[in-house]
Formats: sequence, C-alpha cells, structure tokens
Amino acid sequence: MSLRSRMLLQRVLFALKAHNVRYRQTSGAGSVLWETPVRPLCCSNRRHAPAPASTGPSSLSFRSHTCGELRSDHVGQKVTLCGWVQYLRQDLFVILRDFSGLTQVLIPQEESANNLKAALCGLAVESVVKVTGTVRKRPAGQENKLMPTGEIEILAQNLEVFNICRKLPFEMKEFVKKSEALRMQYRYLALRSSQMQKNLRLRSQLVMKMREYLCNVHGFVDVETPTLFKRTPGGAKEFVVPSREPGLFYSLPQSPQQFKQLLMVAGVDRYFQIARCYRDEGSKPDRQPEFTQVDIEMSFVDQAGIMALVEGMLQFSWPAEKGPLQVPFQVMTYNEAMRDYGVDKPDTRFNMKLIDLSEVFSSTKIEFLRSALSQSEGSIQAICVPSGAKHFTGKDLDVLKQTAKAQFGQELSLVLVRDDGTLKSPLKKLLSVPETENLLSRAEAKPGDLLLIAAGSLRVVLPLLGNLRLQCAQLLESHGLSLRDPSAFHFLWVVDFPLFLPKEDNPEELDSAHHPFTAPRTEDTDLLLSEPHKVRGQHYDLVLNGCEIGGGSIRIHKASLQLHVLKNILKEDPSLLSHLLEALDSGAPPHGGIALGLDRLVSVVVGASSIRDVIAFPKSFRGHDLMSHAPDTVSEEELKPYHISIKWPTEQRGGGGGGGSAGK
Amino acid sequence: MSLRSRMLLQRVLFALKAHNVRYRQTSGAGSVLWETPVRPLCCSNRRHAPAPASTGPSSLSFRSHTCGELRSDHVGQKVTLCGWVQYLRQDLFVILRDFSGLTQVLIPQEESANNLKAALCGLAVESVVKVTGTVRKRPAGQENKLMPTGEIEILAQNLEVFNICRKLPFEMKEFVKKSEALRMQYRYLALRSSQMQKNLRLRSQLVMKMREYLCNVHGFVDVETPTLFKRTPGGAKEFVVPSREPGLFYSLPQSPQQFKQLLMVAGVDRYFQIARCYRDEGSKPDRQPEFTQVDIEMSFVDQAGIMALVEGMLQFSWPAEKGPLQVPFQVMTYNEAMRDYGVDKPDTRFNMKLIDLSEVFSSTKIEFLRSALSQSEGSIQAICVPSGAKHFTGKDLDVLKQTAKAQFGQELSLVLVRDDGTLKSPLKKLLSVPETENLLSRAEAKPGDLLLIAAGSLRVVLPLLGNLRLQCAQLLESHGLSLRDPSAFHFLWVVDFPLFLPKEDNPEELDSAHHPFTAPRTEDTDLLLSEPHKVRGQHYDLVLNGCEIGGGSIRIHKASLQLHVLKNILKEDPSLLSHLLEALDSGAPPHGGIALGLDRLVSVVVGASSIRDVIAFPKSFRGHDLMSHAPDTVSEEELKPYHISIKWPTEQRGGGGGGGSAGK
Repeated sequence: MSLRSRMLLQRVLFALKAHNVRYRQTSGAGSVLWETPVRPLCCSNRRHAPAPASTGPSSLSFRSHTCGELRSDHVGQKVTLCGWVQYLRQDLFVILRDFSGLTQVLIPQEESANNLKAALCGLAVESVVKVTGTVRKRPAGQENKLMPTGEIEILAQNLEVFNICRKLPFEMKEFVKKSEALRMQYRYLALRSSQMQKNLRLRSQLVMKMREYLCNVHGFVDVETPTLFKRTPGGAKEFVVPSREPGLFYSLPQSPQQFKQLLMVAGVDRYFQIARCYRDEGSKPDRQPEFTQVDIEMSFVDQAGIMALVEGMLQFSWPAEKGPLQVPFQVMTYNEAMRDYGVDKPDTRFNMKLIDLSEVFSSTKIEFLRSALSQSEGSIQAICVPSGAKHFTGKDLDVLKQTAKAQFGQELSLVLVRDDGTLKSPLKKLLSVPETENLLSRAEAKPGDLLLIAAGSLRVVLPLLGNLRLQCAQLLESHGLSLRDPSAFHFLWVVDFPLFLPKEDNPEELDSAHHPFTAPRTEDTDLLLSEPHKVRGQHYDLVLNGCEIGGGSIRIHKASLQLHVLKNILKEDPSLLSHLLEALDSGAPPHGGIALGLDRLVSVVVGASSIRDVIAFPKSFRGHDLMSHAPDTVSEEELKPYHISIKWPTEQRGGGGGGGSAGK
Repeated sequence: MSLRSRMLLQRVLFALKAHNVRYRQTSGAGSVLWETPVRPLCCSNRRHAPAPASTGPSSLSFRSHTCGELRSDHVGQKVTLCGWVQYLRQDLFVILRDFSGLTQVLIPQEESANNLKAALCGLAVESVVKVTGTVRKRPAGQENKLMPTGEIEILAQNLEVFNICRKLPFEMKEFVKKSEALRMQYRYLALRSSQMQKNLRLRSQLVMKMREYLCNVHGFVDVETPTLFKRTPGGAKEFVVPSREPGLFYSLPQSPQQFKQLLMVAGVDRYFQIARCYRDEGSKPDRQPEFTQVDIEMSFVDQAGIMALVEGMLQFSWPAEKGPLQVPFQVMTYNEAMRDYGVDKPDTRFNMKLIDLSEVFSSTKIEFLRSALSQSEGSIQAICVPSGAKHFTGKDLDVLKQTAKAQFGQELSLVLVRDDGTLKSPLKKLLSVPETENLLSRAEAKPGDLLLIAAGSLRVVLPLLGNLRLQCAQLLESHGLSLRDPSAFHFLWVVDFPLFLPKEDNPEELDSAHHPFTAPRTEDTDLLLSEPHKVRGQHYDLVLNGCEIGGGSIRIHKASLQLHVLKNILKEDPSLLSHLLEALDSGAPPHGGIALGLDRLVSVVVGASSIRDVIAFPKSFRGHDLMSHAPDTVSEEELKPYHISIKWPTEQRGGGGGGGSAGK
C-alpha cells in the first residue's frame, strides 16, 4: 500500500477540483439529552415528495443508493449513502456498510473542509450516518478486486450523523470469537454480519418464490389456521396456554394437520401456509420451541401429484447461485433405503452402501457368524470404506468399535486391506480362502480399503452400519479426503414406509409410523384386517443430503377406515377425534399433502451448521431468549386471572395441597 | 321449464349419438368397512405421469377442469370434473360444485347406461364424485344466464364416487338460517359457501400481492419473529405460556414491536411480516384471541416515506373487481378529525360534519348555552342531518337523545326544520331572530333537515356528536336513504396525534397515546422538557370507511430520548427495556413502520359484518373453538411438567393453601 503516493495524488486532485462542501453536523455531544433530529419533517400535514427512487432497495429512503451497488458506471454521480461506520483508515477513509456491502468514503483533506474532515475522523465505529458525495474512480492501482464496489470511492461532501454508537459489549471484529451465549444476548449485533444478512435474505427470497409457485402457478390458497387450539390428549409436546376460564387451557399445536384436512373437507381444494408450529421438547438440548413449516394440502390428488408439486416448487424457488435443480428427484423405498444405507434418510452424496455378506458366509465355520445367521432376521452386513485402511488411525478404528458397542450393543469386525492386498484382521485366520475371495469380491474391496462387518439381527445391524457409514465419511473428510461435495444438493424421496410400527414400550401393540391419518397403499388395504403390521402407507419423506426436510402422505378420507385405524388398530378412543370423523363423513374429498421443515431446509441450502443461523431470534440451546430473558418470572398476582398457581418443586406438593384432587 | 320437450329432445340426441359408457362404481354400500380406494397408485415406486395440466387450478389433479370454468368454447371436449353433489334434479341432472362454481351434469337416459343412471340418481347430496363426460351446448332456450357455466352441460359417461356424504347435521340450504354456534361447530360446512370461498381466496390474493409489492418491488425482507417471548410487565392482555422450568413463563406477544425495531438496529433495513399476534381480552365480547397484522418497518425513512409505501402497497394489491384505488390518500390532522367528525377515525364517505355554533351563541341569553360556553373548553356544536326532520320518527329522536344521555351524560337539543322553513324545537321560543337566522345559515340547514345541538366541554361534545353522526347515518339508511356508497372505499390518514394523553385513572400523569417508542414531531421536541402534553407524535393512523385499519410511527432511535420518555415522562422502570435501550445505543438507524390489521382490512374490503367471516377457523364470541372444543380441560398430571396447578375459584384459595405464598 503506497500511502504516501496516494496522499500526494489526492492533494493534486484536490488542488485541481474545487469542492463546494456543505457541512451540517448534528449536535452529537454526550451532554445534550438528544441530538437534532435527523431530518425535519415538512411542517404541514401534507408531505413532501418521496426520495428519488420509486422502486428497488433505495425507494422512499434518505439514500440514493445502497452501500453495495456503486460501480464505475456511477462515476461522476452525486449520491447519498446511509449506513454504519465499519472502520476508519488513517484519517483518509471511512468504510461505510449496509446490508448490501461496503463502500469506501474518501475524507476531503483540503482546509475548507476541515469541519467535515474532523467530523468524519471522529466517527465511532458502528455509528450510523448519511454521507453525500460524488462517485470517483479509485486511482489506478488502488482498486480492490475483492470488494464489489472496489473500483470506486465516494468523495464526501456532506455528513449527517444519525446516531453515535456509544457502547458495544465488545469490538465487532472480535465478535465471532465470542461465546454463543454472548452472541445471542446481543443478537442485533450478530445479525449485522454479512453471513446472517445473507441467510435471512435468502430465506425470505426462497419463501417468496415458493408462494409465487403455489399461489400464482398452481392456484393454492394461503389460509391461516389457529395456533390457540385444543390439546391433543397425551400430546406431551404441546405447550399449554391457560385461559381465563378456570381449568380450561388452549394448546399450541405441533402442526396444522387437523385444520388442513378440515380445509379439504371444506372444499378449499388447495391450501398452503408458512405455518408456525410449536413443540415443547422439555429437557432435550438444541431445541427450538417454535419452528416453521411449509404446509401444503391438496384435494383430488395422488402421491405422484404431491411429489411433482414439491419438486416443481423447489426447482422454482431454488436460489440461482446454488445452480439449477434437476427434477424429478430420486425415489427409493423405505426397504431399499434401510437395505442400502441402514437409515430412512440416506445421504446419497456418497456411495459406501451396505453390503449383504450373508451368502458369503452361508456355510461358514466361524462360530459367531454362524450363530448370528441362525437367529431370527439374522444377517451379516458390511460397509467398505474406500482407503479407510490407509487413512484411519488406530484411534479412529477404536471410535468406530466403541460406537457399535455403546450405541448398538454390537461387536464390529474390522478387515483392513493392505496395499499389497493382504488382510489385517482378527478374522483373517478364521476365513477360508474361498470365503476371503468371496468377501473381497462381494465388497469390491481394493487395496487400502477398510471393511466393517457386523453380524446379528437386521434390526440392529442395518442402523449400526448406517450410523458408521456417516461416521466414516466424517472421518475420511477429517483426514482431508473429499467425499461429499459441499455444493451438491441430493434430494431423495423415500416412499413405502410401513404404516404401523410396534410400540417401543409394548411391541405387541402398534403405533402409527407417522400419524393415524395416513392412507394405506391401495394394494395393502386388505391387510388392514389381517396383518396390519405389513401394510405400507402412502407416505413420502423428502430427504436432502441425509437430512429429513419434509414428510407427507395421502390421507384417509373415509370415516369408516379412519375409525377402524383409530379404534381397532391403534386402540385409541375415537371420540377424541369425533369432529374429524364427522367431517370425513360429511363429504371429504380424497386429499393429501406434505410439510417441509423450512428452518432445516434453509440451513442445508446455506450450509449452516445449526438452524439457529437461519432464524432471526432463535432460542438458546436450553430454549431461552438470552436477549430479553424469556421465559421469565410472572407474579402470582398476574397468574390469578388464569386460575393457576406455581407449584415449586422443592415443596413437593406439600404446601400446595388439594391441587390434584381439585382438578377433577 | 318445458321439461317434456326437453326430455324429448334428449331422447332424440341420444338416439343420434352412440355413447361408449364405461361404468365403474365403487362399492358404496354401508356394510363394507371401506370402499375401493379412489385410484390405484402405480405399483412401482416410480410414479406415473401427472395429470394433463401442469399449471393452473387443475394441475396435478384428477380433474381436467374446475366446475366453474367450462364455456361454449369447450363444447365437444371430453372433460373430467371433481366436486360435491350440490343437488339432483328430476333424475335428469346432477349439479356438481367445487370452489369455483357449479356445472350441470346430464344423466344419460338410454338403457345401455342404466347402471350409470342409477348411480347418479342415487347420489346423496354433498357426496364427492368424479364425473367424466363430454361438454355439450345446452339446448336452445335452456341456457342459464345467471350461471357462468350456464351455456353448457356435461353428458356423463363415467362416475367415480370418492365419498358418500352420510351425515349432515342439517340440510345445506338451511344452513344460513342456523345459529352461528351451529355454523361454527360445523365450520367445514360453512366454509363450503361461495361467499366464504370468495373471502378466503380474496384474502390470500391480497396478501400475495402485498408480499410481491414489498419483496419484489421494494426489497423488503420477510423475517419471522418469535411468538414465545418475555412477558411485558403489566401486560395484562398477554397470554402466558408456562415453561418446564418452575415459575418461568413465556408470553404470546401482542405485536412484534420490539423485534421489528431490533431488526432495524441489526441492519435488516426493510422488514415485513404477516405476523400472528395475540391479545387476551378476557371477558370482552367478540374478541379474537389471535389475529394477523401486516407488520412493516423501514430504516432511513420518514413519515412521508412510510405513508407512500402503504399507499403503493394497497394500490398494488387492491382487488381488481373493487375498482382502482386513488393515491395519495386524504390526510387529516387529529385536531381536524376531532373538530369536523368528533372522532379520530372519521368515516369520510359522507359529510354531515360537526358545526361549531359557539360564535352564533356568543351573546346568547339562553341560560344553559351561556353556562356551557363559560366553562373550560366550553363549546356549542351541532350536526345537521339532511332530511332528518322529514324521515326520523319520534322514536328515532328519542334513541338519539338517549345515547347522548346514557353514554355521554349530555343533554341534546333538537331543532327540526319543517318543510315550510319553520322550526320545531324546545329552543324555538328562546332563540332570537338573528340567532335563528345565524344558526340556520351557519348550519346550512334546509327545509326537512334536523339539527342536533350539544353544549358543553369539547371533550364530551365532540365525541358525542361524532357518535350521533354515525348513528344518524345508520338511521337514515334504515329509512331507505342512501348515504354511504357500499362500494366506495375512503382511505384516510390521520396524523399529528398527541404523543401523550392524561392517564384515565390519574389525569395528572401521562400515558403514551400509542406506545412509548413513537418519536415526537421535530418542531415539538423541545416541549418534551417543558410541556410534554403538548407534544405531537410522528404517528399516523390509516382509516378506511371509518374503521381504523392500521397505525404506525417514526420511532425514537436515540437511547437518551427513549430513556427520557420512559423514565421522566411515563415514570416507568427503564430497566425493563434495558435490552432495547442498549440496542439503541449500539448504532440504531432512524426508522419507522406501520402495522395494518389484516382481518379488519379484508372484512371491510369484502363487506363482511364481522372479521369472523374472513378467518377460516375463528373463535366464537366468547373465545371458544366450537368445533374442537378449545379451550379444554387438562389433567393435573399433564400440568405437572409445567409446575402449575389449577386454582378453582369456588375454593377461594381455601383448600389450595400455600399457592400464593409459595409463589414468593
């Protein structure tokens, strides 16, 4: 940086060009109660003409341009920018920032502009100002190619200080290094980062395009559904909201499921809503008690129709800078996903599929393999980690074995294929020559690869290897291998889920795999009477890069079938859903829909590590708003109208007395 | 209706044209558990091609057209419609309905179609079916001009019954006559009416256009703000939401006010949100505990900018069928509105302004008028009701006097101008000749008019006459006079409100007229120290046909000024808003915004008498969801995780014991 020559050049330029600098500084001293207001309003109640631009980001504004838009085309124009002081450089430049970027403001050096110079040089970082000046080309060699506005600078002619930044909890440039708690407490500062600005704007744009697609292209109706609803019996994850009627509570619903179906019964035909949903996950870490879903429901449609709609919507709304999206998306059955990836939301950005070795070992003499195969649903499965033998350390291998043991109660057999093709494995001596050959050929293992082999029930072995597959991908990447393209977006439909699953606490009984409103697959309908556990549902999950970002189904639209599922299969009291059953019997059309998790979708799109990075004011890990301190105490007096009182846990019902019985 | 000739014509037509009727009826008998599912899904997990249309209201659907779109252009086309059986006519026609309208389906009469005929004739009203057939021109003379599809009918060739409507609580055509409670309980049936379908669709369209205007035209960012927030101290109208941490509560905010301002501090520049807001109005009737506002905030803008933005937004999004909207809207100061209309949200669709008669009676001998004028802010005001003397009955006049007495504690003097120009009034004998002449000329009273005169403090007299003005308009209209054009939309800005008002319970102290974040008008800023009650705020209300549909302000962006208002003027504890004060001190830009009440706006646009008619699932008059029965009881067991218990009012704290003290 040739500062000297730069300053010389400036002097020459100044000498050549007379500036008519008007200088109006607001009274910014700390002693006055408030500074001269920004800009006098017209005194009459009829107002003056709005600012020059009538559309675009600077319409109706004090500025003529944003801080990110000036280019060499604008040279010679008089412009007005508003923004924050990013930093000052050597009493020569003020770098001004707004949401759109940075612009360099040149501080006039000539004597006639002494007041302006002093005011500019005295600006505290993060103060908010308006600068009027002329766009100049930067002197040759002084361009900044890394800065979109790096070809130009603004020669300041006028400054208005809107607000002096008096107090920052820390230097802005130190901000990223601070604890997340501090960044959450000063969320309004964290949001000033270009990354957060981009995330919020991309989210807004994405949602806007989705709306255009649904409303304008396909005739959907945006309908708002209530969030003060009736509590679902047993809905342990629903927040309660006391009403002023003693003992009566609203609840905040986890989704508008019932309402969207009722809208179909109501003949609304095509409904969508960007819906706020609530889930009280209590002590679970990293929870957001409120989240947003893109909620869609259609009448007279089948599974293929909903899938095509969602593909079209994502293609239409996909941010241009992320490259075009190919449709249709890949489709995989639940069984295929479990078989090949050991999980119902496979990350298909890389291969490393599960390999069934049961046949290889069908007549093995190895005792633990024989015993595994003889058990119910017994199987021998493996994954082959490319160059895993080469790159994984002993510690890596221990971690994998430990995961198997701790999370799945399962032993893992490792086979390392040395560069010379020989094996290193506890199994080595036990394997026959044909077994070894079959194993390597079946697994397509090459020198340097690592085989992870698990033997046992498919119910354990598949999820185990599905988990290790992802862990191995992370390990390989931590060793510098690129396995998953961070700019790739692999969408995948998973279909043909079982409609019911055995209850965790009582495997004799069945639970809905998703929810009790999912329709069975047509050809499985008869099984509902005989073998309900074999019925597949018309349910579809949408997976992106191994994250489940949505799920939906064709719903049951016949009251008789819905009643059978509730009463005979799920053993639930159907009277709790009587209004829905009644609605189905009043002329319900065939219908189906989907809900996409917007926060998760956007976080994958922008590559954020947490959904907190795509939410303006997220709750902390523990569900707190660290800025305003919510949740907070409320006095017993203020609780009175709601006919509730606090039961402090230390008292253990002692003092509180009759609460429980009074509740009857 | 020449039914005979019609049937004859049909026979001829059928004889001329051979129909290849395929007939597939689903097993609709009540004895089977469920009927054959709608449409077999492709067996493979790869799906079949979507339905013909790829965009529009019938895209991806079982139907080819909606029930409202077929015209004579479509004659000869084979179409598929899906919808509800509106009614059957003489075993000849099924009238099919969907959201878009009605289509007449002709039942084939030839013998070869006996099965199809039987199925169609046996359809229960409100059953859901798919009909395939050919579009025919209706026989000459049989067209229905009142029906958009009245030129055509569909000759049915195939029927699929999706769902039989087995049970309706009442006949659909009787529905409008039923009690609102019943219509709320069966909301999904009420929503099938063409009016409700129109209302929901117009609302969706209006919001979509607003979003396009804000996002696409002016670069606004749609940001979602939390609804689980910290309770505002003293925020009696905020619902509380217990958390799982003992004694800690979230609250549901009445508006995103704090968040929108923090977003400006965060540099988001232009924010909007169609925001769900909550207000617990307890025992107030006709309340909606949740409602929706169009929430807007902008940086680097003044009052004129926000007003121009809103005008542009409404013009852009205005439904075409309501005629174009003229901008800019009329602007009126608060003082002008009170002076001329006696209210801060004048209905400017009609004149009948308040008339100041103080001068007319400045030297009157009439005792009660003299005494009124001599009191502080004493005044004599009137309205002249055109042809009120002619049309109002004695009972009408009594009602007006009673309103004055009961609601305002004020006597009202009536002067009826007879057709011959003579007066009928208790005042008649007391008025001098010049007074009478002045009165009539000042009031521009013509024969047949009615003068309502009130004398007293302006604080009472203006609101009284403002109220009577509206009541007189209603009375005139009830007598068949058209005063307000029901298709007219009069938008009006009311500006220059006082920033503070005397507290109702303690007039010595001041309260914010709107909220404590409103900036004072520039020229009034100095009065904040000396005479705060004289300060006008940079606040603006948007009024439509006499309804307040929005309000906003330029906000205080200096911490020092905000602190002064909170602490010295409003006498509030500023520590409760410390995060906001801290934010203002960290570089807050000048900013302002507005919030429009979406439910109210839409209800005025569609001419609905209640906002319940523009909300899909509103709460009842008492805040209940009559369909699902919310709010509902929750067991003490389910309240346990929230550390609260119910205090039953009959127990009067007796049995419950320590609740109150335990809370300390």
